Amino acid sequence: MPVSSPPSVDDIERAVSAIGARPLPLTPVFSSWILDQEADARLHFKMENFMRDVGAFKSRGALNALMNLSERDRAKGVVTHSSGNHGQALAWAAKKFGTRAYIVMPSNAKEIKKRGIREFGGNIIECEPTQCSREDICEQVRRETGALLVHPFNDDAVIAGQATAAWELMRMVPEQLDAIVVPVGGGGLISGTALAAHAFSPATEIIGAEPSGADDAYRSLQAGRIIKNETVNTIADGLRSNLGDKTFAIMRKHVDQILLVDDHEIAEAMRILGERLRAVVEPSGAVPYAAIRKYPDVFAGKRVGIILSGGNVDPDNIPFPRRHG
Amino acid sequence: MPVSSPPSVDDIERAVSAIGARPLPLTPVFSSWILDQEADARLHFKMENFMRDVGAFKSRGALNALMNLSERDRAKGVVTHSSGNHGQALAWAAKKFGTRAYIVMPSNAKEIKKRGIREFGGNIIECEPTQCSREDICEQVRRETGALLVHPFNDDAVIAGQATAAWELMRMVPEQLDAIVVPVGGGGLISGTALAAHAFSPATEIIGAEPSGADDAYRSLQAGRIIKNETVNTIADGLRSNLGDKTFAIMRKHVDQILLVDDHEIAEAMRILGERLRAVVEPSGAVPYAAIRKYPDVFAGKRVGIILSGGNVDPDNIPFPRRHG
Repeated sequence: MPVSSPPSVDDIERAVSAIGARPLPLTPVFSSWILDQEADARLHFKMENFMRDVGAFKSRGALNALMNLSERDRAKGVVTHSSGNHGQALAWAAKKFGTRAYIVMPSNAKEIKKRGIREFGGNIIECEPTQCSREDICEQVRRETGALLVHPFNDDAVIAGQATAAWELMRMVPEQLDAIVVPVGGGGLISGTALAAHAFSPATEIIGAEPSGADDAYRSLQAGRIIKNETVNTIADGLRSNLGDKTFAIMRKHVDQILLVDDHEIAEAMRILGERLRAVVEPSGAVPYAAIRKYPDVFAGKRVGIILSGGNVDPDNIPFPRRHG
Repeated sequence: MPVSSPPSVDDIERAVSAIGARPLPLTPVFSSWILDQEADARLHFKMENFMRDVGAFKSRGALNALMNLSERDRAKGVVTHSSGNHGQALAWAAKKFGTRAYIVMPSNAKEIKKRGIREFGGNIIECEPTQCSREDICEQVRRETGALLVHPFNDDAVIAGQATAAWELMRMVPEQLDAIVVPVGGGGLISGTALAAHAFSPATEIIGAEPSGADDAYRSLQAGRIIKNETVNTIADGLRSNLGDKTFAIMRKHVDQILLVDDHEIAEAMRILGERLRAVVEPSGAVPYAAIRKYPDVFAGKRVGIILSGGNVDPDNIPFPRRHG
């Protein structure tokens, strides 16, 4: 499949006004005097973990994907194979439009993930984890129901939707950013961020942050071709995907560097963000701040935007506070 | 000492514009579709835990107290005996004005509390916990340095400052609130809230929420006179104070009822706010939401404002995430 041209500035601006016209309130931008002092930098945190209901930037891409369908297509429903934040976001967006979302997930997925999807009225299609290819089941659902596939990241409308986070960030911060740091999983958020920055603030450096236990983007950009993870080993469960052809093409052109962090550094970043910003940030969301702490020389003296992408921590892993009584 | 008349609407409006003119950004108002469904109510959470740097509404009162001093008085510095959020807020506000803050605290206070005060350049005056009366030491500092006492709650300028939280809430929520629920410690926040609501939205019911292990406000309002806690036993460390004469006088007039919750309910509320709003809320801050969960009949069908007053949890008690590696 040839790679089509990436979303244009017009596409992003349409996404901004489409999403803004819906009641999707802006997520706030936080800063901290202490964290600035520690980093010797001015840090502007875009708090996507506070995205209403869904708790992650994924609402943006899902909403934009649905808005880019004709009414007739939308009525057929949508399908995806992500059981993470994208699955929840797609169920949420489908509900907004009064249409159906089918989320294909392995039967052994955690109950909390299923609950998140059910709460928004999503239809869960389970498959045996050992036997099924989730892509195949998606295709089957598509054929049987007519539902349209909304890929979690390798989709122009999704990428344009994710671009609105950085667009908001650049509008809300009263100074030009030297760099924006973004987590990298399948590459949807960083591609959108790169396109938005290229259009509105071309001097801003785009820096990806990736767990060293799923460093496919780091290796892919070095090799100049998509290299997949052979194994993944990281607490950042949202960043285990491999890149897609669309996202990789944008990243090659616009991403300046990828910084790697390990799980210990991610956990420490989560703790500090909890203490200093009073924010619950999931492991994947804390990866950019872990990179800022690990590579101080890259950021010293700079004005830095940081996208804290999500806040969905498995409650079993939020012993906060320790259960009392 | 006779009780002077409480802060007027003019005092509150002056506090609003004084605080707004300084760079004290609005704290956001959050809501959650799921939490609304669970409560069968429309819940608007005023996120004072996100108050920049200090992490609690106390910045408002401290800033307003300093702004209400003449330049000459301000130059003498300020003193207080609160080692909690008010102590930090006063140190922070004094730094803004380039003056000194003296915070009297017992020598066995937790290192984290001392750190918070030192970070903002506050001067800690330690006293032996068994021997000293903190009020006496305050008085001594006052005589020696000329610093002015800024009481944590029983002070008109502080009360008017705290009123700005509810004022912002009422302006930011696009519907009139049937009730506002506020935690009660010394009564500064609830007095300010009651005055603001009385002025701008007189039909709004003012409901206090208090830990049953420090239920002096509940008993005081029933008795019609200030009754002190004989013992306190609650994780809500910010709500252990007794009422002051100024705050009690306002509360008698304008507070409709006090609801009591126990520590287990407070801890559960913290956990749910972490999961659903992705917010770190300290025990004292979670008390109003605990009350909403405990007394559903009081709130069913209503539009409710909730002031989540702070987010400073002792990091030893934020095992979030569990330390990794």
